[in-house]
Amino acid sequence: MNRTLRAGILGATGYTGQETVRLVRGHPRLELAFVTSEAEAGRPVGGNGLRYVRAADAPLAEVDVVFSCLPTGESGTWAVRAAAAGAVAIDLSADLRESGSGAVYGLPELWREEVRGARLVANPGCYPTGVLLGLAPLLSAGLVDRSRSVIVNAASGVTGAGRNARRDLLFGEVAEDYRAYGVGNRHRHVPEIAAGLARLAGPTEFVFTPHLLPIRRGILETIYIPAPSGVTAGMMAEACRSSYAGEAFVEVHDGLPSLKDVRGRNVVALGFADVEQVSQTLVLLVSAFDNLLKGAAGQAVQNANLMLGLNEQEGLPL
Amino acid sequence: MNRTLRAGILGATGYTGQETVRLVRGHPRLELAFVTSEAEAGRPVGGNGLRYVRAADAPLAEVDVVFSCLPTGESGTWAVRAAAAGAVAIDLSADLRESGSGAVYGLPELWREEVRGARLVANPGCYPTGVLLGLAPLLSAGLVDRSRSVIVNAASGVTGAGRNARRDLLFGEVAEDYRAYGVGNRHRHVPEIAAGLARLAGPTEFVFTPHLLPIRRGILETIYIPAPSGVTAGMMAEACRSSYAGEAFVEVHDGLPSLKDVRGRNVVALGFADVEQVSQTLVLLVSAFDNLLKGAAGQAVQNANLMLGLNEQEGLPL
Amino acid sequence: MNRTLRAGILGATGYTGQETVRLVRGHPRLELAFVTSEAEAGRPVGGNGLRYVRAADAPLAEVDVVFSCLPTGESGTWAVRAAAAGAVAIDLSADLRESGSGAVYGLPELWREEVRGARLVANPGCYPTGVLLGLAPLLSAGLVDRSRSVIVNAASGVTGAGRNARRDLLFGEVAEDYRAYGVGNRHRHVPEIAAGLARLAGPTEFVFTPHLLPIRRGILETIYIPAPSGVTAGMMAEACRSSYAGEAFVEVHDGLPSLKDVRGRNVVALGFADVEQVSQTLVLLVSAFDNLLKGAAGQAVQNANLMLGLNEQEGLPL
Amino acid sequence: MNRTLRAGILGATGYTGQETVRLVRGHPRLELAFVTSEAEAGRPVGGNGLRYVRAADAPLAEVDVVFSCLPTGESGTWAVRAAAAGAVAIDLSADLRESGSGAVYGLPELWREEVRGARLVANPGCYPTGVLLGLAPLLSAGLVDRSRSVIVNAASGVTGAGRNARRDLLFGEVAEDYRAYGVGNRHRHVPEIAAGLARLAGPTEFVFTPHLLPIRRGILETIYIPAPSGVTAGMMAEACRSSYAGEAFVEVHDGLPSLKDVRGRNVVALGFADVEQVSQTLVLLVSAFDNLLKGAAGQAVQNANLMLGLNEQEGLPL
Repeated sequence: MNRTLRAGILGATGYTGQETVRLVRGHPRLELAFVTSEAEAGRPVGGNGLRYVRAADAPLAEVDVVFSCLPTGESGTWAVRAAAAGAVAIDLSADLRESGSGAVYGLPELWREEVRGARLVANPGCYPTGVLLGLAPLLSAGLVDRSRSVIVNAASGVTGAGRNARRDLLFGEVAEDYRAYGVGNRHRHVPEIAAGLARLAGPTEFVFTPHLLPIRRGILETIYIPAPSGVTAGMMAEACRSSYAGEAFVEVHDGLPSLKDVRGRNVVALGFADVEQVSQTLVLLVSAFDNLLKGAAGQAVQNANLMLGLNEQEGLPL
Repeated sequence: MNRTLRAGILGATGYTGQETVRLVRGHPRLELAFVTSEAEAGRPVGGNGLRYVRAADAPLAEVDVVFSCLPTGESGTWAVRAAAAGAVAIDLSADLRESGSGAVYGLPELWREEVRGARLVANPGCYPTGVLLGLAPLLSAGLVDRSRSVIVNAASGVTGAGRNARRDLLFGEVAEDYRAYGVGNRHRHVPEIAAGLARLAGPTEFVFTPHLLPIRRGILETIYIPAPSGVTAGMMAEACRSSYAGEAFVEVHDGLPSLKDVRGRNVVALGFADVEQVSQTLVLLVSAFDNLLKGAAGQAVQNANLMLGLNEQEGLPL
Repeated sequence: MNRTLRAGILGATGYTGQETVRLVRGHPRLELAFVTSEAEAGRPVGGNGLRYVRAADAPLAEVDVVFSCLPTGESGTWAVRAAAAGAVAIDLSADLRESGSGAVYGLPELWREEVRGARLVANPGCYPTGVLLGLAPLLSAGLVDRSRSVIVNAASGVTGAGRNARRDLLFGEVAEDYRAYGVGNRHRHVPEIAAGLARLAGPTEFVFTPHLLPIRRGILETIYIPAPSGVTAGMMAEACRSSYAGEAFVEVHDGLPSLKDVRGRNVVALGFADVEQVSQTLVLLVSAFDNLLKGAAGQAVQNANLMLGLNEQEGLPL
Repeated sequence: MNRTLRAGILGATGYTGQETVRLVRGHPRLELAFVTSEAEAGRPVGGNGLRYVRAADAPLAEVDVVFSCLPTGESGTWAVRAAAAGAVAIDLSADLRESGSGAVYGLPELWREEVRGARLVANPGCYPTGVLLGLAPLLSAGLVDRSRSVIVNAASGVTGAGRNARRDLLFGEVAEDYRAYGVGNRHRHVPEIAAGLARLAGPTEFVFTPHLLPIRRGILETIYIPAPSGVTAGMMAEACRSSYAGEAFVEVHDGLPSLKDVRGRNVVALGFADVEQVSQTLVLLVSAFDNLLKGAAGQAVQNANLMLGLNEQEGLPL
């Protein structure tokens, strides 16, 4: 029961892969068995005797859990292969997030029991994690006016865009800049958010606008929630506190969280504020989290803990 | 007619004051006659023989134009005094922005003729400049659905918060952070925006949420505009292009502007995008500008040019 | 033997104090018994039931270990008081670093046995930690030409300057800037470095020039070491590898370390390079570390572990 | 005599090219006749009717001056071709900086008369500009002890590395990092510095260590100058003040300059400090400048002004 379990990481040199490596190394019950990188194959992984191997050479059948951090388009297939080889597998790409993929959508605070029994989990996208955890209790409690659109104005640090040599992600381009992208509900996370909201409460209209922040890590979503007359920020906060009582990885703040409240921690922090001087009630929700932790690698380890029957909090920074 | 005019700057060591100094120095028709600073009085102003004096010692009556960049609460009184002493005066603080102050609200693209005849101008707030210039043509053209709220999600670099020794503005606090502040229509620019919109088109509901960006300068406002069915981003862009034809300091982009498009330039850049998958029409507007130029010192010089009968573009970076 | 030990932190809201709180919270053998802050007294410490108290109200006699993170000038007295009250005490300020203070200078890799037996330890300054750990093996091995000066060109992130509301540390001043300060051997760490070098190998001349980097955390010291003819970077690296064999918190790299190699880790990373085209032999040493960890709070916990008879690595991120 | 001269820019989309475009556009005597970009050919150049053309389509013979901002390896050939076509040509790459190239080395403060008569100029490298301007007066005045090495510890913003899609220049890699590169006198600017010093005063030993700063623009060089006994910082400052009297683009500060003193300005700022507690005299020199202005495009325009018989300061920000 207390034996150390063996973990493998596919695609270990991107930002998500690096963070997963870091978490697995610090995890008291996991041991790093292999890490893959096509470009770095043969080279040592900083300081512990391990060397990168090609994905094709990864001993999938010899490990207990596989984290697939490969690019979307490749990653899902590898996760499926790992699960077929007998490991528990978590895919951190977007490949398996649609229903019908055969994978369980791994957002433990909303659908924990499914994760617990799963052999193959699709780790949620970073932006959807914050939106779904923020809105779920409000939709359940009937605090959202479904006749109007929720507006999600989101901003992410650059590690959310991956570690690819793109000119638009150069320091000289990003520093001192700020811009919207994928606007007008054209971002690839829109269907994922829509599916999550539909599953929670039926079709729910929203507008999603991501922006690129000149920081390394962190996502902050400023969400404008149309509400029935008389609904207040306090009622929404209370609904979240009640829903997430006992959850280690969701915090409801008295004020509004900022990114520094969540940096390096596997939590989503939520805060609410009333909006004055509008005739149709609107409540402001800020959802803040570290995109590499609760938005990616941290949530993946949380899922792995559940799938492997470990303590859900094991190895995760609070 | 081509004589060099004399300019004085009150409060020259804050970010707005420094930028005004820089513009006046590079202005072909203005000469820097005095600069004030209580803390630096007696010390030389980098490299041109001038020294800081106390405001009380500033020869207000001996200059053609005074820019008052003192803190809100002090600045307006000084601008009034300068105007009384015979100078043309521009107040860059919030003191004189309300109607009834006796000052003309100095947003040239909307109310140029008033500025031209004024002796005392209240320079607009940074956030309101972007909102008003973005929405004015749309309101005029009937492209906004007045039964729903406009949502203004704004983000500003730290120079917008002034050069005060506040712990929350330390590099160690702001770097790698991002947060909302003054939310729920409680920011002091809300009444100014409301008054501007009312003047343009009657009372117009909106929600304003500013955020602090970890950059030095620049404001980007992501504005969600409720529109009558059938209205498109293209129609809005066209309305702006038509309204601002001939304006040097407003640009309508084909895509959405980012901060790097406007850094160091005295312009507001506007861009529009349609929003898909919503049943009530909504159009996205991004308004980007340099908070120290078109949002403060640049607009002040533009106002001064008009008040002094100079070419409006003189001394302003494009 | 396995009982949890009680720790108190004096001055817990500065950058060093915050980091110490974080480490103590994650430490498997320590429990946070009190934290002090004059300004925050009475307020809760994020999420664990504890509240800040005034230093005067701290139960010094009821804890096993006290970390004093107060400002230099105040901190040492409090650490002495804590030791007198029966706790093991580590002072993170500069107050007790001079010999004659009654405290042991806590640089474990060089003087571990003294630390082990101590009740009162002066935690080293950040800059001296990197210089002394880098030069110690070279001086011992006779690889330094003592007739010429060692040149230490150092650069630190802003958290090294403390969390004080100083105008020169505002984001608007520090971002996109870089500057030297305390130059010409006038910085307050110079006597500490001189004393350390003298203790290691007798008086050793050096020049120390710190610079302020626009980053939050990290120190990188570029050190120019005059060497006897024939001495190479390889020989120096070998001397360090041999000296630090078995040390968990010093790494000798094959190339030169950068700050991202050490961010968030309690290590000093060293790397050497030969210098071509000079007639008198010179070897380049780069010493990189996280100023808040191996340069402050991490080293303090390392010292505490030794003083309390715990595993030296307990609770420290690698 | 006052006719507007026509300028062409080869390679206009890199950081140096963009800055040259910006300067030429604001230059009262120059008009932008063509700009080239292989990738952007056919697309409009922001807002003035001009479109990018391929270099092969550039009308070299129809302009008065050509700035070649292409990559090193290509640029020099094009500059030679432009000069052959009858234009005055400035090459901003490293291709023509060696003596024997047929181009004049364009550092006006040191070798102005040669520039004035030249048809083809090699614009100096960024790092060498600061070193040579800082040391020239000291070498002339005999204030440097030639038996010891000068140590140049330099740090540059990322725009100095060009606008290439390299993974190591991504925001996610550079932010919160700092590192040395090209150490041990292996950087490609070492021969250029050596040649410059030799031309000024005969062979002079030095060590050059560049570092990458997490900022967009600016170079600060911390230079350790061995000096004959009795020589002081004040004497060195005086030698520079005397040498550069009348120079618009070199400033000698009373203290040490920082990057924010020079951002956006075509100047090199110099400052000196004595070093205490060393037995062999050493003086600290800090040389700070904007790598894209006095380190590249600004200096190129300064050279062009001289070559075209214009006022040397025309179009350059002070």
